[in-house]
Amino acid sequence: VPATQTTAAILSIGDELALGQILDTNSQWIADRLLTLGVRTAEHLTVDDDLASLTEAIRRLAERHALLVCTGGLGPTADDLTRQALAAAMGETLIEDPDALAHIEAWFAGRGGMPATNRVQALRPRSSRCLPNPHGTAPGLAAVLGSARVFCLPGPPHEMTPMFESFVAPEVATRDRAVRTRTVLTFGLGESRVAEILGPLMDRDRPSRGLPLVGTTASRGVVSCRLRVEAPTAEQADAALDATEAEVTALLGPAVFDRRDPASGDSPDIADALQRALLALLRGRGERIAVVESCTGGLIGAELASVPGSSEAFAGGWVTYSNEMKIALGVPREIIERHGAVSGTCAIAMARAGLERAHAADPSCAHAVAVTGIAGPGGGSEDKPVGTVWIAVAGLDGPAEARRFRFRGGRDAVRGWAARAALGLLRLRLIGREMPLLGEVERLASA
Amino acid sequence: VPATQTTAAILSIGDELALGQILDTNSQWIADRLLTLGVRTAEHLTVDDDLASLTEAIRRLAERHALLVCTGGLGPTADDLTRQALAAAMGETLIEDPDALAHIEAWFAGRGGMPATNRVQALRPRSSRCLPNPHGTAPGLAAVLGSARVFCLPGPPHEMTPMFESFVAPEVATRDRAVRTRTVLTFGLGESRVAEILGPLMDRDRPSRGLPLVGTTASRGVVSCRLRVEAPTAEQADAALDATEAEVTALLGPAVFDRRDPASGDSPDIADALQRALLALLRGRGERIAVVESCTGGLIGAELASVPGSSEAFAGGWVTYSNEMKIALGVPREIIERHGAVSGTCAIAMARAGLERAHAADPSCAHAVAVTGIAGPGGGSEDKPVGTVWIAVAGLDGPAEARRFRFRGGRDAVRGWAARAALGLLRLRLIGREMPLLGEVERLASA
Repeated sequence: VPATQTTAAILSIGDELALGQILDTNSQWIADRLLTLGVRTAEHLTVDDDLASLTEAIRRLAERHALLVCTGGLGPTADDLTRQALAAAMGETLIEDPDALAHIEAWFAGRGGMPATNRVQALRPRSSRCLPNPHGTAPGLAAVLGSARVFCLPGPPHEMTPMFESFVAPEVATRDRAVRTRTVLTFGLGESRVAEILGPLMDRDRPSRGLPLVGTTASRGVVSCRLRVEAPTAEQADAALDATEAEVTALLGPAVFDRRDPASGDSPDIADALQRALLALLRGRGERIAVVESCTGGLIGAELASVPGSSEAFAGGWVTYSNEMKIALGVPREIIERHGAVSGTCAIAMARAGLERAHAADPSCAHAVAVTGIAGPGGGSEDKPVGTVWIAVAGLDGPAEARRFRFRGGRDAVRGWAARAALGLLRLRLIGREMPLLGEVERLASA
Repeated sequence: VPATQTTAAILSIGDELALGQILDTNSQWIADRLLTLGVRTAEHLTVDDDLASLTEAIRRLAERHALLVCTGGLGPTADDLTRQALAAAMGETLIEDPDALAHIEAWFAGRGGMPATNRVQALRPRSSRCLPNPHGTAPGLAAVLGSARVFCLPGPPHEMTPMFESFVAPEVATRDRAVRTRTVLTFGLGESRVAEILGPLMDRDRPSRGLPLVGTTASRGVVSCRLRVEAPTAEQADAALDATEAEVTALLGPAVFDRRDPASGDSPDIADALQRALLALLRGRGERIAVVESCTGGLIGAELASVPGSSEAFAGGWVTYSNEMKIALGVPREIIERHGAVSGTCAIAMARAGLERAHAADPSCAHAVAVTGIAGPGGGSEDKPVGTVWIAVAGLDGPAEARRFRFRGGRDAVRGWAARAALGLLRLRLIGREMPLLGEVERLASA
């Protein structure tokens, strides 16, 4: 089968994208989703708001690929040209779609009535159909152009993604064989270390032997092992994934903290997976945690609070950015003077003081994590270079411990790693498992 | 002049980009830089690692545009095809460049010697030249193809951006006239409100009258007014910008918090501009602030701490996520029971308690900001719908005040807006100016 018979193309439309005023995240999202559905994207194109270029782009991409997904250019203003360009590429006229018009009018009903300019959003090429948009005024479009299926979706991601799931995903999913994916989420090992551990499980020729392909991607410290298989039936695909997932999970041990099975409705979004895993462990024990943050400045708390319902397991904490605030919390001044604010002793004192106060305020608060470090660019020394971070955990269930890390990268990278490592360290403690975390170079147990 | 004679195209190369496994940020960065240099990008294309597609893409883009900037595909492995594709598009053979080879060998000198595979990175089309890469092994390429200038740069942003500045920027900067830009940063008004206030200053035909073009972009609540002018000399361009900037600044009043003049070396990065402006105001007064955060969970502290040197003006604070933690800080239990945790009275009590404690720990701590709200998706009521946020400021210099906001969007959006509005409210208080902030619906002054 020639590549052009099965591949997809993605077209992003708009001056603000072409000129670099905003970053296009839609194309990556769509390509990633299409791959999960068994469709390979061969090219992405971004064009500015020019009718001739846009029409030519649609025509050219529809000739070369079996599927074309366009985003943007469906708004009500004069520079929104996707409808006209699609009609021109199809050699059709635009007609007004009564259902789409009714939808737009209904959208504006509680908002002071539909402005006259929005009426154009109900136009569609004669042989196409409109796709209802539950989160905005711009309907999408579905059309056939030559041998290609073409979908036009609005540009805002919160409008585009649900429309992709409703209208594009069901149409493009491979029907003659099952394509299944699964993801095993790990934290604490680098991506190259994960690859080393998985070894032959990552061979690229596994699909030719009927086995799932295993790949890794890293995002904010979470290394995802992505399994993908094609098989004649869903049952066969799932059985193959089950076997490979068991191997991956056994090899990676305590680094594995979650899994995602899209076939069971699991969300593909893993941005807050580590926090969710930690909060779920705490909820299961009926316990809460508190944070004591210095160089992270509130980042750990902000990450925990980003999960809906986190208040069940997250009590709050202290941002002890200055030494005065550390002392006010209960860290003995002598510790700071003797060991420095960036020390294992200080980190343990911070965690203990936070735990004591949080437990007094709320008896369900049974753990505290503390972070103190040098995020840079200034403040480093030979002894304690930029990137040095101490993370301590204290709990009602045992002695406190601290680990020293050496993180690489700029200020934001060091702070981000510190926050993630704190979550990872708490998780290891809660599950009672042991492994050195990425960047870890030293440990200190409390007296 | 036809558009194709002056426009640029950007080509990103690689399977991992086409398949959506990683997000392309290079293309936006390059388009934005080119615009500052006076060059308009008309299209971005991403293609996978296929020699025929890549060759055709280079040929087609070089025919349509005066400038083509490619990134990626310059590595040492079999799927790095940019060198071959450029040679094929130019109809030339590849030859080995001795200087490039020496550079690659020198790179590996302290790293155990050059692997044999890296030798291909010294190849270039006969008529092209190699561009040295100070941060990696892959040299770039500069070539002429038909009437287009073509630059190929490595994909990693930390290698690409310095090479763009060294080799592309000086070549493409307009020489026969000066192109100058300036940016006025505002907070507190929506983008459409800014456009309404600026009125005819945003007319698209101003360049035909020799006046700067004014456009707006919004990012995380900061609405940037971008001024751009072309003139025969730099002096004339700067004079025109000075006049328009003065008009913009006068019209937008207290919403303006900073400006950026690239000609004076100002950074184009505005991600932390609002925090920087606030911290600079505090440093000028020799004062520090403390935060008391509920629904934001530490986000305000994390944003402040992201700025290097912020400890001079940021003391720390409290994450009072649970009611118990609010009470432990010093919020009277009766206030929570009578008014609820999401109330102006509670926000003021939080700010006051935080200020009192922080000032006791550190006498330079003269202000506190507190945030309490309903980020959703649960927890809303008819009275206090999701998105309701109270923000209070307390200072040694006057009575405390609280403002109620109603933010739209999901949990992360509401929390992000709340953190930004808190920074904006503190800034207004420090400069002694007055304006309603975006989303503000009610005020409460302290007794």
